[in-house]
Amino acid sequence: MNFHTRKWISPEDLNPNGTLFGGSLLRWIDEEAAIYAIVQLENPRIVTKYISEINFVSSARQSDIIELGIVATRFGRTSLTMRAEVRNMITRKSILTIDELVFVAMDEDGHPVPHGKTEITYLDKRPDTLDQS
Amino acid sequence: MNFHTRKWISPEDLNPNGTLFGGSLLRWIDEEAAIYAIVQLENPRIVTKYISEINFVSSARQSDIIELGIVATRFGRTSLTMRAEVRNMITRKSILTIDELVFVAMDEDGHPVPHGKTEITYLDKRPDTLDQS
Amino acid sequence: MNFHTRKWISPEDLNPNGTLFGGSLLRWIDEEAAIYAIVQLENPRIVTKYISEINFVSSARQSDIIELGIVATRFGRTSLTMRAEVRNMITRKSILTIDELVFVAMDEDGHPVPHGKTEITYLDKRPDTLDQS
Amino acid sequence: MNFHTRKWISPEDLNPNGTLFGGSLLRWIDEEAAIYAIVQLENPRIVTKYISEINFVSSARQSDIIELGIVATRFGRTSLTMRAEVRNMITRKSILTIDELVFVAMDEDGHPVPHGKTEITYLDKRPDTLDQS
Amino acid sequence: MNFHTRKWISPEDLNPNGTLFGGSLLRWIDEEAAIYAIVQLENPRIVTKYISEINFVSSARQSDIIELGIVATRFGRTSLTMRAEVRNMITRKSILTIDELVFVAMDEDGHPVPHGKTEITYLDKRPDTLDQS
Amino acid sequence: MNFHTRKWISPEDLNPNGTLFGGSLLRWIDEEAAIYAIVQLENPRIVTKYISEINFVSSARQSDIIELGIVATRFGRTSLTMRAEVRNMITRKSILTIDELVFVAMDEDGHPVPHGKTEITYLDKRPDTLDQS
Repeated sequence: MNFHTRKWISPEDLNPNGTLFGGSLLRWIDEEAAIYAIVQLENPRIVTKYISEINFVSSARQSDIIELGIVATRFGRTSLTMRAEVRNMITRKSILTIDELVFVAMDEDGHPVPHGKTEITYLDKRPDTLDQS
Repeated sequence: MNFHTRKWISPEDLNPNGTLFGGSLLRWIDEEAAIYAIVQLENPRIVTKYISEINFVSSARQSDIIELGIVATRFGRTSLTMRAEVRNMITRKSILTIDELVFVAMDEDGHPVPHGKTEITYLDKRPDTLDQS
Repeated sequence: MNFHTRKWISPEDLNPNGTLFGGSLLRWIDEEAAIYAIVQLENPRIVTKYISEINFVSSARQSDIIELGIVATRFGRTSLTMRAEVRNMITRKSILTIDELVFVAMDEDGHPVPHGKTEITYLDKRPDTLDQS
Repeated sequence: MNFHTRKWISPEDLNPNGTLFGGSLLRWIDEEAAIYAIVQLENPRIVTKYISEINFVSSARQSDIIELGIVATRFGRTSLTMRAEVRNMITRKSILTIDELVFVAMDEDGHPVPHGKTEITYLDKRPDTLDQS
Repeated sequence: MNFHTRKWISPEDLNPNGTLFGGSLLRWIDEEAAIYAIVQLENPRIVTKYISEINFVSSARQSDIIELGIVATRFGRTSLTMRAEVRNMITRKSILTIDELVFVAMDEDGHPVPHGKTEITYLDKRPDTLDQS
Repeated sequence: MNFHTRKWISPEDLNPNGTLFGGSLLRWIDEEAAIYAIVQLENPRIVTKYISEINFVSSARQSDIIELGIVATRFGRTSLTMRAEVRNMITRKSILTIDELVFVAMDEDGHPVPHGKTEITYLDKRPDTLDQS
């Protein structure tokens, strides 16, 4: 799994306990998974259909930097299943893992439509990004 | 279950398909559950620990009005388990149901602390709210 | 009056004095009144026309939970007048009361249109919400 | 009255009718009045105490540019009363007027404190701003 | 240069160092310059084309009040060049200066279009704003 | 250069011309550069000091997906200079390039402090991220 989008935890992302608000985290994951699905399915009309159980294994505090990873695990006829992990970017300690996020491709009338994909076609590790950063 | 907080779906809550973005919805549910837990446990220091699987059974569109319902289903020693439902306020069609949202009470040092509650003590249906609205 | 939508006061809702920013509060009330009017008038095209004087009788601090109540008080030909109250959800201490919020129903061209309602027709206290929460 | 802060109406400021949401407007006015009061009273700890009735005389649409004007009208012992007007920046058509916004100066413990001001001391029209813009 | 829009620095505008986040500031300047360009060019379809180098000469902290100034410096055929300054409203200490912000007027198809303006035509210092504030 | 954080262009990121608002883009770049600097300098107290000229070479529209790339180009005594590029994630067409973003490390009193780094020490391309995504 590659970790792409990064977030700096700011004051408005905290719960009353002063730690990362679970709802902010879920919003970021859903957006990251949507972006991943749009790119893999080459269809901007995708919707969240199912999210498997979520364990919040550790938390994050203000000014922590976290990173989000998504990877496709199954290509259905109209759906794409992904796995997600969020971790602290510095310590690499896992914050949560979601085994299955299922998105469905839709046609223009809002009905599920076969996407015709059977494997990961958009490769992140293309030559122009192999240098260090 | 009582439905309390209401939301009007505005443009920034939409996914690329033009329907309600799953991440916005999850953020609202987590906030509503946090409020419910704080009130029932009489402790503002609560954190999201676990969310069971989520089925998005129907969607919502811009200008729809939705309402969120939360009800406590189990009082653990340091935790509170709740069930959540979101539905269209006009049609009452269910948008999603989450069977278990588990929050844990924390002490000032960020460790789980027994909350001493065994049942719903904050009643919504008090005399002063029984008139119609 | 029934109190529905609840808000947890977060850092971005505070004024320079560290108490609840009046402007955030007014925004929440206007949105809640709009939702109430849309449901009662069965017309999504409603606009705020008039708000009577507002006394901020007490304030709120970060992490307080507040609840908003709205009730219809007069049905005009094209307008609906509502009363609003905001209070601390735990202490039930009033934060502010607004005697009159007037919204007007509009047609598709943006002109006032008779709504045909003369009384509260959308009842909150329907059987399926009478159980405790 | 001078008009200072300007806003471009963007999609998230619209009500279901597609016109400027009253709540967004009230939030902007309260923030602008707070800034004005802080500057005139030379005290950052000020709170909104009272807002007189509000007539929404005309509306605004997406992409309109509006400007907000505030002027002090009365200096109390611990309070400052201001008048506010919002208008379309291009057409100069008034959108709303509020005759009285009362803010109170607070001490560090959150109690009203005499501010010692009896007139407008912060002048906008200082030499360095008299050139055209 | 006249300074118009004012901002109160709130918690969500701070960087991890507790001072004003550069990105928030750039967003405000770009919005203010866009408003200025729309008014001068009498065309709402304008886009940011170029921003010259930016020196952050001093910073701002939470609760500071800043003001933004924009002035046109050159009228091209399809473009408008502006200079921007941001300063602390109380101390008048400069926070940053940008020598050139270039915006371009677009036609309905998204192509640059001559705007026909050669000088500042929208005057701020009109009679009705010359009284003190 | 590696491209990490991805953004989906939503309605609130658009300018009056219906294309990506320059200010939103600058805010995202500044946040991404801040995260990069914090990680490389192992110091959360960093501030934006200088940004070189910015050419907006192409734009983006609603629902486009963009990706942000940052790479360190020079380690000063207290500063870090980075280069930034933003491009369309699908077409890889460049949206803008910034040759120099200079951030400075601060001590707890807000003064520049030597960071002791002379090269990129945090490597993205660690074994656990070399698999495809």
